[in-house]
Amino acid sequence: MTVSDKSDDYLIGPLSSGRQLTRLVQGVDHTGALVDLNVVEERPLTIFLNAQEIVTAMTIGDYPEYLALGFLRNQGMLRDGENITGVDYDEELETVVVRTSSTTTYEDKLRKKTRTSGCAVGTVFGDMMEGLEGVTLPATKLRTSDLYALAAQINTTPSLYLTAGAIHGTVLCQGNKPLVYMEDVGRHNAVDKIAGWMLSEKVTAADKMLYTTGRLTSEMVIKCALMGIPALASRSGFTAWGVEIAQQVGLTLIGRMRGQRFVCLAGEDRLIRDTDPASVPDEPRKSGRKGAA
Amino acid sequence: MTVSDKSDDYLIGPLSSGRQLTRLVQGVDHTGALVDLNVVEERPLTIFLNAQEIVTAMTIGDYPEYLALGFLRNQGMLRDGENITGVDYDEELETVVVRTSSTTTYEDKLRKKTRTSGCAVGTVFGDMMEGLEGVTLPATKLRTSDLYALAAQINTTPSLYLTAGAIHGTVLCQGNKPLVYMEDVGRHNAVDKIAGWMLSEKVTAADKMLYTTGRLTSEMVIKCALMGIPALASRSGFTAWGVEIAQQVGLTLIGRMRGQRFVCLAGEDRLIRDTDPASVPDEPRKSGRKGAA
Repeated sequence: MTVSDKSDDYLIGPLSSGRQLTRLVQGVDHTGALVDLNVVEERPLTIFLNAQEIVTAMTIGDYPEYLALGFLRNQGMLRDGENITGVDYDEELETVVVRTSSTTTYEDKLRKKTRTSGCAVGTVFGDMMEGLEGVTLPATKLRTSDLYALAAQINTTPSLYLTAGAIHGTVLCQGNKPLVYMEDVGRHNAVDKIAGWMLSEKVTAADKMLYTTGRLTSEMVIKCALMGIPALASRSGFTAWGVEIAQQVGLTLIGRMRGQRFVCLAGEDRLIRDTDPASVPDEPRKSGRKGAA
Repeated sequence: MTVSDKSDDYLIGPLSSGRQLTRLVQGVDHTGALVDLNVVEERPLTIFLNAQEIVTAMTIGDYPEYLALGFLRNQGMLRDGENITGVDYDEELETVVVRTSSTTTYEDKLRKKTRTSGCAVGTVFGDMMEGLEGVTLPATKLRTSDLYALAAQINTTPSLYLTAGAIHGTVLCQGNKPLVYMEDVGRHNAVDKIAGWMLSEKVTAADKMLYTTGRLTSEMVIKCALMGIPALASRSGFTAWGVEIAQQVGLTLIGRMRGQRFVCLAGEDRLIRDTDPASVPDEPRKSGRKGAA
């Protein structure tokens, strides 16, 4: 697995894949004029763990291997220290097979549970919540100067989010540096691709932060906590349960981050307010106009 | 199942449920001031079909029975003319059990497929695409005067979308009248609740339209087509595959509808352009500011 490097600032930047991620679609606008629109692709990708078909995800299709690894990891199907012997993507069949040297815990679990419930969807969700028990994140401090610097840089990085819309971006950050910028049709895929990259590259999580364009729902908060990342920020809103989980696991949660404004929903005691908000410029009107909804 | 009627205009309006859908959450804003925020709830709901556990959905929780019925219907697990003998919601257990008089096709299918694939997630998606084969929607005309009237009314209706944000709204419409306005954390839930209501009330689909605040991804387009509704409009963007499926099944697809602007992506020949866009007021800046992302 090679890491592309199309940007001086990011280890992986947005739009960094060579594959075709958008397509020209013709429409007719309100005045009756033909318009050519740059529209994001969306493709099915079926993820296997050894001989076991796990899920079909709808994805933009840029990092199938990372998506598969990160999805399996975030679902608790790949444990710490699992010996991964191969990650094989077949573009034609639209499949990724992740191979491990031993039978994974999940395969045992699934075999048992399918007999009682017949369907892994509930199981999958149950496993995610189960994985959270006992999780306490490191009490890493977060500086508002870093938060503002990250938001400013991310919001001005050319991305599919800015050019084609209908997509979510999630960025793995360290201090005031954005490291890996993943985009996908679903915000969960973007996070899973980051988890897959971290697993591949054996990246430590305790000093990182996730920034996302998407909402802070329970699933986003759970994924971030399972990845061991102690801070999560978003320009969008949040749900009550997302906030509750963040408080339980010690995740610093920042929502509605736009220009100088933000709300800290959990982890106020870990936030170092070292910047006067009045010194931060307001966000230009057009920023983020094409975001997914 | 009774239909609430809190609005003179809607059969079911937003915020029309008596249950608690938001919670006050305390945060600290960018200036360090404590703020009380009205935040949407998000609860797990496990859906059973007879003795079979099917899925755990994350939902705001207002219409669990409609959500269960609509989900099963849109997944092709309840066929036309299925004899539904009961829909039982247990608030404490967070479950809905949908009962049919005979064993459903799906239970047979599931038993077979779990043996080969072990997981219903892929199966469920496979079934949705399978259900689309041979679907051709009625060539119902759509007037731009109706489109503009609907958007204006929906965008000014008080809703969770406008007050708490982080939520999606989907509205079932007929002519220039919005009928049923459902909201939920996930845009798919909002559509499924409408499908459940239509199934309960035996509502015809051929003269209806769906308006959604969410993106027009493949799943949204597929659900709309499976419901037999010939038109789908959104204020948000779209994916290439969503557009392709709409063209295949004869769905009139309208995207990026804001103020006088919109793009017709499929079904231009069924669109009656009876309004001069210049006569339509531009959308006020603040509208939809709190939408989900």
